[in-house]
This record gives sequence, structure tokens and C-alpha cells, in this order.
Amino acid sequence: MPLNKNGLKIVQVDVKDVRFPTSLGGHGSDALHTDPNYSCAYVTTTTESGKRGFGLTFTCGRGTEIIVLTVRAMKRFIVGRNAADIFADFATFWRQITNDSQMRWIGPEKGVAHLAVAAILNSLWDLWARLENKPLWRLLADMEPEELVSTIDFRYITDVITKEEAIQMLRDKRSGKEQRIKTLLDKGYPAYTTQVGWLGYSDELVEQLCKKYLSMGFTHFKVKVGLNLEDDYRRCSAVRRCIGDDKYLMVDANQAWSVNEAIEWMKALAPLRPIWIEEPTSPDDVLGHATIAKALEPYGIGVATGEMCANRVMFKQFLQSGGMQYCQIDSARIGGVNEILAVYLMAEKLKVKVCPHAGGVGLCEMVQHLQYWDYAALSATMDDRLIEYVDQQHEHFTDPCVVNNARYMAPMKPGYSTQFLPGVLEKFSYPHGTKWQKMIKEGLFPAPDEAELVN
Amino acid sequence: MPLNKNGLKIVQVDVKDVRFPTSLGGHGSDALHTDPNYSCAYVTTTTESGKRGFGLTFTCGRGTEIIVLTVRAMKRFIVGRNAADIFADFATFWRQITNDSQMRWIGPEKGVAHLAVAAILNSLWDLWARLENKPLWRLLADMEPEELVSTIDFRYITDVITKEEAIQMLRDKRSGKEQRIKTLLDKGYPAYTTQVGWLGYSDELVEQLCKKYLSMGFTHFKVKVGLNLEDDYRRCSAVRRCIGDDKYLMVDANQAWSVNEAIEWMKALAPLRPIWIEEPTSPDDVLGHATIAKALEPYGIGVATGEMCANRVMFKQFLQSGGMQYCQIDSARIGGVNEILAVYLMAEKLKVKVCPHAGGVGLCEMVQHLQYWDYAALSATMDDRLIEYVDQQHEHFTDPCVVNNARYMAPMKPGYSTQFLPGVLEKFSYPHGTKWQKMIKEGLFPAPDEAELVN
Repeated sequence: MPLNKNGLKIVQVDVKDVRFPTSLGGHGSDALHTDPNYSCAYVTTTTESGKRGFGLTFTCGRGTEIIVLTVRAMKRFIVGRNAADIFADFATFWRQITNDSQMRWIGPEKGVAHLAVAAILNSLWDLWARLENKPLWRLLADMEPEELVSTIDFRYITDVITKEEAIQMLRDKRSGKEQRIKTLLDKGYPAYTTQVGWLGYSDELVEQLCKKYLSMGFTHFKVKVGLNLEDDYRRCSAVRRCIGDDKYLMVDANQAWSVNEAIEWMKALAPLRPIWIEEPTSPDDVLGHATIAKALEPYGIGVATGEMCANRVMFKQFLQSGGMQYCQIDSARIGGVNEILAVYLMAEKLKVKVCPHAGGVGLCEMVQHLQYWDYAALSATMDDRLIEYVDQQHEHFTDPCVVNNARYMAPMKPGYSTQFLPGVLEKFSYPHGTKWQKMIKEGLFPAPDEAELVN
Repeated sequence: MPLNKNGLKIVQVDVKDVRFPTSLGGHGSDALHTDPNYSCAYVTTTTESGKRGFGLTFTCGRGTEIIVLTVRAMKRFIVGRNAADIFADFATFWRQITNDSQMRWIGPEKGVAHLAVAAILNSLWDLWARLENKPLWRLLADMEPEELVSTIDFRYITDVITKEEAIQMLRDKRSGKEQRIKTLLDKGYPAYTTQVGWLGYSDELVEQLCKKYLSMGFTHFKVKVGLNLEDDYRRCSAVRRCIGDDKYLMVDANQAWSVNEAIEWMKALAPLRPIWIEEPTSPDDVLGHATIAKALEPYGIGVATGEMCANRVMFKQFLQSGGMQYCQIDSARIGGVNEILAVYLMAEKLKVKVCPHAGGVGLCEMVQHLQYWDYAALSATMDDRLIEYVDQQHEHFTDPCVVNNARYMAPMKPGYSTQFLPGVLEKFSYPHGTKWQKMIKEGLFPAPDEAELVN
């Protein structure tokens, strides 16, 4: 049912560079990202009647100011529009914001430009769910197939899926939807942990963490690899020892290798029985991933990727080529829920399991909604599917994700769980927030540079 | 021979948003870019001794301010470094500027981030050629294979070409190099024209332009297509009528189509015997291009693409998959000369013809150097290879390209031909240049928005 347009004219789009000083703790480091300050560009979209939607895209610190400026440059596509009109023909709006005739040159549909689109679109979806007084997953699950599909731009993907096929796939799964929603409300959705094996952890720390997460009910454990094979083997062995033979190990190279190196390295780790290798090489190398997947299939190792996959066209090829056995959609890199829905539909059609990427800032909060919708309305299964879980940065949100007994519990508040608590912007806005001013003054961090001062 | 380090510490990196009001004329329009203002982010790198290098990346207007801010954010990787040290281990510097542990998240190696890298790297190559007192093509052609290859980061491409293979390929072409350089100096390099068939041109205008370019000696004519099949057929027929059966027609869809649509549309245009279809679909769709190429092969139509190809990893796959029969390297989208050299080497290994993309701002000036080097030192052939030529924006450069009798004449001044004439920045810097202030005052263009005011 279309929203009443009254008061829904968008009058303001605010954007902030928000950074958390996670590099001080040394957590979150991997083969290529050695000192991230988990950050985000945080967008607040406000209507004439004072309704607000909150959206973000995750970043690693430096460069967030560039996303912020890009959001400002994209305001022209939103301010003055009526939110109800946008939602009523969302695919057209999506095409406009991603394909401005001048700005598309600096993308198109990738990198900085697409991260900015993600933050804006996430705020609009949050607004829509709030206006409907539903958590986002429920807004999506309650939509008629035609309405859901009307939010998606099918350009460039019709060779894999058409609008009509997508509608039919959703219709086919109508039966049992209410029962599946009940299952989600009762039991939640399975999670895995990434916190047992960051690079450089000692055996003792690895074992201590394995015990902790085992006792919390986790059955799947992910370990970072890719800098030093001997160290990787040691940490993975420690994890395997601790979790036993009946639990699952995954490894993540964060793009450290060339194609042949990935194959050799993983053959060496194969005795420890990882079920997937995540990001073995360049996130742009579809054919390389397919080569790696083929070589590792005899070892029972699948390839997982997606957190840096640029857009639906890249996902399409990973799914078509056999380069991706686990599809790790990200809630904040590709162009918002609209484009992510297209990826879910292609993955379902091509029978690839979706296991969302999370962690960072707000990613766990967002992806749970998407995976809930998938179970309720599309794939109708949780078999071999899990949502990544990292226990960081949840304390900043008004509606933080809740993981009990290694399962994401149903988010129940209206929206996309993307709103920061009062005070977060005052403290962590970069560089003028009170925490940053203090840390810079104390010499913990250098002063912002010329580019960062545009914030 | 390493440069003397004296005075080569880089003390300043300036960047300007420079826009030319080309949308007023309606030239340069295509299926997806309907009103471009040909623009660039223009970088000037200055050493302690006052030596300067000039580099740019081409843009279409809005959004250039975002590239400008990104260049500022990347100054930290350059200012204070000695240029001689950078050139002596250029691949390491390239890795640093493209893979900063925090900033790589907002790329990596694509979109805004990579366009900024291109502008910076182009300024460094211009500086290097000036320091050696050679045009860039000659600097490259005179390098020992080991030195040339030392500028390239081979990560992610070793499954197609290794450093050792690249060195051997260059060694194999040493003989005859001086003779080929003499041929270039005497006869130049063949060009084709894109100016006979922009969308919306009338039959009369098309015929008039064909006659003009025929009389200038052109044998290859490119026409924009993709909005309306009937109109495309009409304009292409007019071109074919005018140029006769012995000249060559190419068509360019600028990403307008989905995969199947591209195939059907081109079958309809096949009777007019185009030799290539350029950018039939999403620039990210390697597998889609391969499908199109296979379907069109029986019609004698090859696929051309590259101007929006994000990086060497994407080029690698286009070259591997048969999705690209004509490799259209761009001098300002991927990470500077370093990464372009990697693409040339892969194309040579996989026997794909390189026909550079040009036009815009400064692209003709730059790509001529690259194609000259290719003929002198790598492919050693001009067969079926051409450089695009568009007669626009050359008047702003101190060393504009010269095309005589449909051939690019050898650029002879030291550098990469990327320096603007005095006065260009004063007039065309956006939004504060005198021309822009005047045009905005006259109501020809709206006032700059909030984002653009950071310039």
C-alpha cells in the first residue's frame, strides 16, 4: 500500500565522519588491513514532518572524509523529493542516484561513489521501515513479490534473472512464510565467530578464545591467514585442536595472494579441514576465484567472497562462474538494500548459499535483517548458511544486534537498526568529536590532515 | 641510470578542479553521458629545486571535486619523498599509494580512489620524463627491460604474466627498435575519428563530417549508438554510404545494453559491417562481453572496451576470456603508466590488439606516448591498431597532440604532454575561475553546490 505523502518531503540530508579508535587495541587486523580504525559515513535523512532515517557505510578510517563529501554531492538527487514517491518507484530513483550523466564517470557503481550511495540508500530503507512501523526484515517479508521486485534495477543482470522470474520465485515461496517467521522469532538465525584467530594471536590466546566461543554455543570458527604459512598452520591447528573434529573451521586471507599462491597455500592448510577460503585474491578476479575453487574442490574447500565485491554485475559473474560457493553480501558496499536483493535473487536462482559479511560498524545490525528476509521469503532454508558475528561496536547503537547461543535474535524495533545512541556523534565525529580532540591532544593520534579538515 | 637525488625532494602537490563548458555545444553526448562538461583533476608536483610534473585524470564535470579531495588525502604518500627514490623503486611506491591499509577499503584500485592515483602518477611520470629531457614515449622506449618492468606491481596478474616473462618479451623486441623509432618519427601512428556520428546528428551533418574527415585522410570512423535502433541504423547507413565499402566503421554503445539486447541490436546493425562494437554493456561484465563476442564473431564484429575498465585485474580477465578483441587502454582511469604497462604486456602475451581510448581532456596527448612505446619496444606492429582522435580541448595544452593526414605525429617535447598553457587554471578552475564566474553570473550554469564549494 503506498504511503501517504503528507509531510514526507525530504528536507535535509546530514552526513558525519564517525571513527572509533580500534587500531589502539590491535583487534581487527588482517593480512592487508593492519591498523583499521573502524569508522563510517553516517547519514541522517529528515522529512518535512520530522521523520528520520539513519544509514551508514562502513570504512576503515582514513578516506571516510571522501565518502562524506560524496554524500554531500549526491544531496541534489534527494533533497526536495517526496520519500513516498521514491519508495513507490524505487528502482527509478536508484538508477538516478547511481547513474547521473556526469557523476557516473567517477564510478560507475563502485568504490567511493557506491559506498556513498549505500549510506544514503540505507537511510532511506531505515526511514521506510520506521514509517511502516516494522523492522526492515518484516517490511521486506510482508511485501508482495511485485512490490519488492519494483525496488530493483535489473539492468545488466537479465541474462541471469528477469523481473518476471524474480516475482515467480518469491510467489513460489509464499507458502510456509508465516511458519518460517515464527521459527525466526522463536529460534533466531545461526551465527559464526571471527574472533578466535586474528593474525599474530598466540596459541594461548587462540585456545582461550575458542573455549569462550565454544561455551557460547558457536560451531563455526573463522581464522585470518595469509601473511606467514607457518604461523597460519600453527593458529589453525590450535583452533582445530580446541574445537574438535565435529566443529567447523573457515579461513580468510583478505586478498593476500595471487591465484597460484592461493591454491598452494590452501593445499598446505587442507589437512586442518577448513570448509572455506575467504577472499583468496583480488576481489575483482572472478576468473581467478573460479580457478581457485576448481583446484580446491577435491579438498572439500569452497571459496567465499563478497565483502569487497563492487556491485550486482560482479556478483553475477562470481555466481555464474563457480568462483563463489559462499556469497558474502555486504550491507554497506553495494548500492543499498535494492541492489542486495538482486544479489540474493541471483544466488537463489544459481543455488549458491548466502552467508553475509559482518563486523565493522553496524554491519551485523544490518545484515541480520537481510538474512531474516531471505529465510522468510526467498531461500526458505538455513542449511549451511550463517551470519558472521564480531562482538565490536554494537554498544553505539539504539537497537544493537543480540546474539544468544550463537544465534542472531530477531530485531523487533522499527527500522534497519542503524541509529546511533545519543552522544556518539558528539564523541566520535572525526576530527571534532570530544574523544578525538582528547586523543589527538594526548598524542595517541596525529592531527587531521588537510583533506580531513573538510569535515 | 638512477637520477641524481639532489633537489628532487617533493615539496608540494597542488590539485585543481578544471572544467570546460562542453555541454553548451552538445558535442560529446552518448547513450549514457548526455551533457558532459569535459573536465579534469589537474595535479602539479613540485620538487625542492623547482622542477615540476603535471598530471591529470579526465572527468565529466560534477564529482571532480571528489577526486580533488582524494588527491589531497593522498598527499601524505608523496610530499617529503625524493622523486629519484620513487622512480628507483616505482612498483613499491605504487603499492603504497594504492594499498594504504585504511584507505584501500574505499577502493580498492577502482573508481574515485584510482582516478586520483592516476592523476598523481601521471604527474610523476611527466616529472621523470622532464628530468630526463625526453618525451615520455622515448623515456620508456630507451629503458632497459629490467628497469621498465621494475615500475610494475605484478600482484594478482602472475597467472597471466610474470616479471621474468615480461623482461624476456621486451628483450625479444630489442632488435629493430631504432628502425621503428625512425618510422614513428617519419610517419607517425594511425588515428581514427569519433566525430562523424554523435547521437542526434542529422543525415546532412553526418555526411558533411564524413566528407571532412575523409579529406583529412581518415579511413576508420566511429559512430555512437544505443538509444534508438532506427536512428542508429540511419546514421550508420549514412556513414557507410559516404565512406564507401573500403573504409571502416566502428560503433560505440557506451554501456547502454544488457547482454542479450547487445547481441540482438548488433545483429540488426551487422549489414552495415561495423568492425567493432564498443562498450556494449556494463564495463564490469567480463563474462557478458565474452558471450557477446562469441555471438558476434560470425558477423565479423569484435568487442572493444577498456575506457571504464577499473584496473589491471579486470583487464586481465577481459583479455583471458575472449571478451575483448580490441583493448582500449585509458591513460587516466587505471593507476598511471605503471599499471597501463602491465595491461600492454598482458595484451601482447595474449595477442589482443591495443587501440587506446582518447578524447576528453588530455587523453589524446597522453595515449600517443603509450602507443608509440608499444610500437617501438613491445608489439612492434601497427597492424589493425589505431589511436582514437577527437578534436577537442587540445588548445589548452603547451604540447598539444598533432594529427596530420590521420596520423599522430611524434610528440617531441620533454614530458607526458600534460601541461596546461598559462591562463587555463585562472579561467577554467571550477567554480572560482573567471570564465565560470562569468557563466554562472549569466545564468548559463547553476551556482556550485555545497560539495563543489570545497574546491
